[in-house]
Amino acid sequence: MKTVLIYSGGMDSTVLLYDLLFNRGHEVKCLSINYGQRHSVELEHAKAICQELGVEHRIADLTSLKEFLKGSSQTDDSVEVPEGHYAEESMKLTIVPNRNMLMLAVAAAWAISIKADAIAYAPHAGDHAIYPDCRPEFTEALSQAIALADWHKVELIRPFIGMTKGEVAKLGVTLNVPFEKTWSCYKGGEVHCGKCGTCVERKEALAEAGNDPTVYE
Amino acid sequence: MKTVLIYSGGMDSTVLLYDLLFNRGHEVKCLSINYGQRHSVELEHAKAICQELGVEHRIADLTSLKEFLKGSSQTDDSVEVPEGHYAEESMKLTIVPNRNMLMLAVAAAWAISIKADAIAYAPHAGDHAIYPDCRPEFTEALSQAIALADWHKVELIRPFIGMTKGEVAKLGVTLNVPFEKTWSCYKGGEVHCGKCGTCVERKEALAEAGNDPTVYE
Repeated sequence: MKTVLIYSGGMDSTVLLYDLLFNRGHEVKCLSINYGQRHSVELEHAKAICQELGVEHRIADLTSLKEFLKGSSQTDDSVEVPEGHYAEESMKLTIVPNRNMLMLAVAAAWAISIKADAIAYAPHAGDHAIYPDCRPEFTEALSQAIALADWHKVELIRPFIGMTKGEVAKLGVTLNVPFEKTWSCYKGGEVHCGKCGTCVERKEALAEAGNDPTVYE
Repeated sequence: MKTVLIYSGGMDSTVLLYDLLFNRGHEVKCLSINYGQRHSVELEHAKAICQELGVEHRIADLTSLKEFLKGSSQTDDSVEVPEGHYAEESMKLTIVPNRNMLMLAVAAAWAISIKADAIAYAPHAGDHAIYPDCRPEFTEALSQAIALADWHKVELIRPFIGMTKGEVAKLGVTLNVPFEKTWSCYKGGEVHCGKCGTCVERKEALAEAGNDPTVYE
């Protein structure tokens, strides 16, 4: 099975990469998206992990779309990254307008071009409270649209949609995922800040899995 | 009602622009997409028509995605533009992988950013035979995904989905659409070639409406 994975270099999509390669035996091609994110350092992490695994990795450059993605702390320099727990209302500032549909649309174009069987991506159950485009009903509708977008049918795989981030981390431990090489922090500094929503969430999940090699500020 | 229109500068989306402005009273913002199309001359036509109407017009630059859009005569220089009638099998060469989802994803991002109420685009009944991503079931699934993509809900409007291109042309005549300023030809030369699928289709539709000011080669 040939699969295009939307790959950020973060912990969830890295666990999914390992899961597809070593549990499911897929032929995986990784796609990262540069949408002008503040934490573009994640792209370097994605590249390095793919290189080590010998997996094809491409970066789609959507930085020219910045003018259409206003109002998010992740793409708009005038908006600061909020700190605190992910469940807090302020965390909605990190939403990038329609980010997941943009990423999935590029992945689907590539998958159709190379006649891949599937696209995989890694939203999990904890994402839904903040991110509307991680909700199961969104991914379900988009999955139908992707299947109908071409005469060649491509499936959308979301194996973690019903799992918590802690469960994803535990799966990663069984697969020997090198979490120290993954990147989560939304601030995109030298090391993980440990305070932004995605750092707090990462810390909790890796603690739950009993394995956190991350260096926090 | 504030609406983002996916606007190519072709005859169908120009009729829709006039329809939204003068029949429906929408506040319209036009979005054209530069996906590296062979007939990028259409973008100049789009710009000129918007300028004349005093309508905001933006061009999203997706030319960096060319490597993900292989195999189409419209984005791949190694594939020639087929001539003949639109219904012919060869016309499938003009399909750009996942083009409509890409365009709609950018439009939705912009619509969400500016809190627009709707996105409009202009596929018609004649498009379905060739283009999988003009099928009503595709646009229906994507419309659901767009409505769920953000906490701010955006509607997808496709008023021509049940109309033939001849009917769209007739509506344009009642709205005094300046068809001579619109561009259809897939070859993107100095004047319309009159032989490619989209020229043949344009000629038939405008003849049906009794008004064809186009200069053909």
